[in-house]
Amino acid sequence: MTPIMAKSEAAELIVAARIRKKLTWAEIASELDAPLVWCVAALLGQHPMPATQAEQVCALLDLDESVAESLQRQPARGIDPALMSDPTIYRFHEALSVYGPAIKELIHEEFGDGIMSAINFNVDIARREHPDGDRVVVTLDGKFLDYRW
Amino acid sequence: MTPIMAKSEAAELIVAARIRKKLTWAEIASELDAPLVWCVAALLGQHPMPATQAEQVCALLDLDESVAESLQRQPARGIDPALMSDPTIYRFHEALSVYGPAIKELIHEEFGDGIMSAINFNVDIARREHPDGDRVVVTLDGKFLDYRW
Amino acid sequence: MTPIMAKSEAAELIVAARIRKKLTWAEIASELDAPLVWCVAALLGQHPMPATQAEQVCALLDLDESVAESLQRQPARGIDPALMSDPTIYRFHEALSVYGPAIKELIHEEFGDGIMSAINFNVDIARREHPDGDRVVVTLDGKFLDYRW
Amino acid sequence: MTPIMAKSEAAELIVAARIRKKLTWAEIASELDAPLVWCVAALLGQHPMPATQAEQVCALLDLDESVAESLQRQPARGIDPALMSDPTIYRFHEALSVYGPAIKELIHEEFGDGIMSAINFNVDIARREHPDGDRVVVTLDGKFLDYRW
Amino acid sequence: MTPIMAKSEAAELIVAARIRKKLTWAEIASELDAPLVWCVAALLGQHPMPATQAEQVCALLDLDESVAESLQRQPARGIDPALMSDPTIYRFHEALSVYGPAIKELIHEEFGDGIMSAINFNVDIARREHPDGDRVVVTLDGKFLDYRW
Amino acid sequence: MTPIMAKSEAAELIVAARIRKKLTWAEIASELDAPLVWCVAALLGQHPMPATQAEQVCALLDLDESVAESLQRQPARGIDPALMSDPTIYRFHEALSVYGPAIKELIHEEFGDGIMSAINFNVDIARREHPDGDRVVVTLDGKFLDYRW
Amino acid sequence: MTPIMAKSEAAELIVAARIRKKLTWAEIASELDAPLVWCVAALLGQHPMPATQAEQVCALLDLDESVAESLQRQPARGIDPALMSDPTIYRFHEALSVYGPAIKELIHEEFGDGIMSAINFNVDIARREHPDGDRVVVTLDGKFLDYRW
Amino acid sequence: MTPIMAKSEAAELIVAARIRKKLTWAEIASELDAPLVWCVAALLGQHPMPATQAEQVCALLDLDESVAESLQRQPARGIDPALMSDPTIYRFHEALSVYGPAIKELIHEEFGDGIMSAINFNVDIARREHPDGDRVVVTLDGKFLDYRW
Amino acid sequence: MTPIMAKSEAAELIVAARIRKKLTWAEIASELDAPLVWCVAALLGQHPMPATQAEQVCALLDLDESVAESLQRQPARGIDPALMSDPTIYRFHEALSVYGPAIKELIHEEFGDGIMSAINFNVDIARREHPDGDRVVVTLDGKFLDYRW
Amino acid sequence: MTPIMAKSEAAELIVAARIRKKLTWAEIASELDAPLVWCVAALLGQHPMPATQAEQVCALLDLDESVAESLQRQPARGIDPALMSDPTIYRFHEALSVYGPAIKELIHEEFGDGIMSAINFNVDIARREHPDGDRVVVTLDGKFLDYRW
Repeated sequence: MTPIMAKSEAAELIVAARIRKKLTWAEIASELDAPLVWCVAALLGQHPMPATQAEQVCALLDLDESVAESLQRQPARGIDPALMSDPTIYRFHEALSVYGPAIKELIHEEFGDGIMSAINFNVDIARREHPDGDRVVVTLDGKFLDYRW
Repeated sequence: MTPIMAKSEAAELIVAARIRKKLTWAEIASELDAPLVWCVAALLGQHPMPATQAEQVCALLDLDESVAESLQRQPARGIDPALMSDPTIYRFHEALSVYGPAIKELIHEEFGDGIMSAINFNVDIARREHPDGDRVVVTLDGKFLDYRW
Repeated sequence: MTPIMAKSEAAELIVAARIRKKLTWAEIASELDAPLVWCVAALLGQHPMPATQAEQVCALLDLDESVAESLQRQPARGIDPALMSDPTIYRFHEALSVYGPAIKELIHEEFGDGIMSAINFNVDIARREHPDGDRVVVTLDGKFLDYRW
Repeated sequence: MTPIMAKSEAAELIVAARIRKKLTWAEIASELDAPLVWCVAALLGQHPMPATQAEQVCALLDLDESVAESLQRQPARGIDPALMSDPTIYRFHEALSVYGPAIKELIHEEFGDGIMSAINFNVDIARREHPDGDRVVVTLDGKFLDYRW
Repeated sequence: MTPIMAKSEAAELIVAARIRKKLTWAEIASELDAPLVWCVAALLGQHPMPATQAEQVCALLDLDESVAESLQRQPARGIDPALMSDPTIYRFHEALSVYGPAIKELIHEEFGDGIMSAINFNVDIARREHPDGDRVVVTLDGKFLDYRW
Repeated sequence: MTPIMAKSEAAELIVAARIRKKLTWAEIASELDAPLVWCVAALLGQHPMPATQAEQVCALLDLDESVAESLQRQPARGIDPALMSDPTIYRFHEALSVYGPAIKELIHEEFGDGIMSAINFNVDIARREHPDGDRVVVTLDGKFLDYRW
Repeated sequence: MTPIMAKSEAAELIVAARIRKKLTWAEIASELDAPLVWCVAALLGQHPMPATQAEQVCALLDLDESVAESLQRQPARGIDPALMSDPTIYRFHEALSVYGPAIKELIHEEFGDGIMSAINFNVDIARREHPDGDRVVVTLDGKFLDYRW
Repeated sequence: MTPIMAKSEAAELIVAARIRKKLTWAEIASELDAPLVWCVAALLGQHPMPATQAEQVCALLDLDESVAESLQRQPARGIDPALMSDPTIYRFHEALSVYGPAIKELIHEEFGDGIMSAINFNVDIARREHPDGDRVVVTLDGKFLDYRW
Repeated sequence: MTPIMAKSEAAELIVAARIRKKLTWAEIASELDAPLVWCVAALLGQHPMPATQAEQVCALLDLDESVAESLQRQPARGIDPALMSDPTIYRFHEALSVYGPAIKELIHEEFGDGIMSAINFNVDIARREHPDGDRVVVTLDGKFLDYRW
Repeated sequence: MTPIMAKSEAAELIVAARIRKKLTWAEIASELDAPLVWCVAALLGQHPMPATQAEQVCALLDLDESVAESLQRQPARGIDPALMSDPTIYRFHEALSVYGPAIKELIHEEFGDGIMSAINFNVDIARREHPDGDRVVVTLDGKFLDYRW
């Protein structure tokens, strides 16, 4: 009996195969017919992947069955704290520091006492062309949940 | 000589006046002809406000000149760490923990090595109606900056 | 213009009045016709209280209108970190340390990938008589939310 | 002489065998005639397991004697701090942040100065059907211990 | 309505009165007919004090009724973290760092799986004469509680 | 040349051998003619052990010379921080949080300005029978050291 | 006897006066005939200021003698940790995270084993015009100190 | 399939080869025709390196293709926190603690509300001869970015 | 009844009086016939001061009896953590980081298993003239205490 | 190509060889004709060692060339944080907590605004005989550096 491969190890193998095979994340997601951000997050270990998709991705990238087994396992979600200070990720953290309390005020004003769900939730990312330099547009879309006793 | 009123104190007075006068943030922003999230963030102390708008808001809310002076001052930006665990704000932090590394991968894939600016940046918030319960939609829109030596 | 009284200050006044008037939390909750744990949490500053109840509690405890105003305000939720090590509260934290991962396994086994909501959620507390010493029974009851993209 | 297998390693092997053999935690607990949450917690390394049960579980899952030896060892209890921010576990932590001080007030009101034991203690988890979506119900049941000099 | 005096403030007043009236803690405990360590801990804010004793101590020290009211209130227990590095307190913390795991082994060997209660618990302190210099002897005495489901 | 075996590794081997040979800590300490708590602490890596005792323990437990060499090395003392939240050890930490400042007051009252040494110091642990359940009694006994310039 | 005004309080008064009198930092530094960054740092409380300059600045800004007294006092240097996450300051911290180890390698290659002094040290800041947007140029200039026994 | 070599491992191999081949960083940078600080930072793992340069450096240092592959990968940027207290790096951190708020004031005075970019940014390091001991001169040069909604 | 003045407040008043009366610490210590470092530490709140000396220092500095009362009180010792990063204090911390383990090895080699007491301990500070610049010489002198069961 | 041996690994090998060959640190330092504390610190990894000495020590201790190579490498200096709570090292930290602010006052009084260098710096350790028990005397001797712009 061997343990199930850690999701971090599976992610490292997927990343290596993706680069060496010169596949984009977009191509992989399209192959799996999965939403883009969800798909990358799942391959990095943040969502359990259905068996069919897990096997599809291993076939596509020539990876072992043990990777597919790992992808299907229920994860413990979260980020390596060291990654929070990577500049590309940190800018989102900074935006939350600057605008978080304002967003909280406006959620309460518009919806009442409650939260935007991070579970019934999706994220999308797009490029918006702009004469002064193209822009990254990230859309967070979650169900409003009101405090309900 | 007295010190300039702290921005946290000005924010407390603005919040009190807003509630007692039964004004929404949206009405205030509209009165100042300012973008909604920017306006709330500025009134909570995260942006310096131009003199005209600072005086307009004080007139609207019957607040002292000392509040207007405080609103114009250059802030030290950031969030009280205790607020990060307020559930309404925490869900955004959690989403960043779950999806941050995936977003980083996709920014690099689409744009190359760089970041989404948090300075040349805006945020919008909207309600999206949905049969299973309406949704909070937050859009982050920042200029891509590539690492450029 | 004065700021709205801080919820921590309102809570201190409510606690003082409750003790001096020899009222139990149960009597107050019953007077307000509110669930017990919700009611205490709200009076300690964790939930906004509807105007009627806020005024009722001030009448019952001979407190100022400024307390009622504070009770109605939207809170920033969370605990003073120093309280987490109070032995009565710490035991719940310890139980979560010991049983949290087991509970996670069982939620996923029974419901699939998702969480117990802490928003569409209620808590109850009861005494259970027992020959070896009575027992505290705390029931956490939250809607299951599945990860849904 | 080799060291006793670490409980975390034993847990990884048990989890792998459970998934590959398509056994549920409930089936394992039933086979061992053990309470469900206790059983999962013990297999994850939080309780020493009596020899008979440790051997039963290894037989059931085709695991080595070294796993059974590890399961019997007295543990150092506690959670990997990284797991506290897994969303499924975090919601319990958040509920404790919001309701902990209220629960403390009500324990003292009902029982006097003391705590709910986390040692003479059990936890149960159940599904409660509900038209708006089924609910997770977690019951914490611990002996009241009064401060007694 | 005024808040109940904070226990830290009551403790400061008790300490000041004790010093100015040249009373020892031992004399105060004896006057209240209370165990010594319990009594000092209660006066420093770690235990609620029965009304009779709270009033006795205020009479003895010429303190206000508001101090007596504060002493009776249920405390949130714990230490100011800055005090943990005071050398007199730190030595106990260091002894726990050096001997804690050994004590854990020996509790489990002698009593089985469980803990020494810190609730059904008392502490005593004594001077033991010794030719090489007198010794501080602190005795911790707590009921054994076995993990019992 | 190989490094000296880490004390944590030696401790793991000693614990494994002790369990497999069904020896108690008390039997080992008695065999070495050493005080009980000192002996367990030394075997867990907190004290250097004289060569004779180190070799005796390896003979008794059928362990390599490399373990004996490790036991004699001067340690860096201290506890793995994760162990501090093990419930059996945490209760001592909690008792120090609740009673530490009272103990400090009483040491200063009885002995003057100074500390209880944690170096010229011993610990003992005993079972005290009690009709309501037996008790753990831990005695800390250290030389008083006065601040002396 | 009153305490000397805290340097943080003096800084708040200087900032308020500077803004109300519409003076730039550059004008103040020029008036005091002091290097620009040194002067602002000293007025914000990071350097003791000679009596003549302290009095000059108070005359210029119509501030009390108590401010001048505060400016002359030897400071305890350092930054409020909350300021480290202000975006304008954070970018320097981020640059140090990304380039610090490379700078260390190059100091050792060019100068040998040692450091750039932060005491025998000065900083300058300038605007460099650039067609793609002007640039901030900060020059750190410190004496090399070699490790010398 | 094997994972891509970690950038920290590649850096260790580059450092070892550089020392054994007695090459300076300056010689390597010159060979690659790359700016000095950028080049060292990239080789230490902070920037992805173009394929040509990655292969050049491996040829120069007799390193494997796996090092070249690692150098091209997009990094997660940041510093091992333990390095922040290395004296050579710490002095820069200390300078930021002492002068950071002054630099912030002067950026706002000269440029308005915004930041110095750490992305559109370069660093240079030079030796400045001085009769009292030569000096390290580090120049930080980043584009000003104004807060722009 | 008023609380005893906090030692930090007494220290602020002593510092203010010392500066305004143009007295050096050395003159104060000499007046009190006390060792220099001990005397400054005691006046800053780290040691209780005998009544005679406490009154002498208040007479010398024209301070209230309440300062003398504060100086005699038993302190809770320790440093404000913010002060640890003041450069003048930090250099001692850095020296301990670099040389602490070497000093530990040498204490054990010369004296055996034990520590240098920080209680039976004194510190002295002197200027040593040197052609390359005068030197600060700090001598730490503490009794060796061996681990003695 | 292999990486250069980590300095921590080299230190472990040196310590093992020193113990097995029954050499004292003093004998090694004398053999290398190096100051005692410097020499131990360098062998533990805190200073680069000149090639001649590095080879001498490997010859003396029968260690590989790879150890000598490691000893010559430029270190990243600092202490494993776990070691800071080893009692022998902690007492120095405690002394700094108690006397650090007093030493700062006296450095400024004697030398003006500046620091004791930790770079142009040496440490010595000696035994001082004393009838009440011998004493550890540690002398810190560093060049005064004044803040000089």
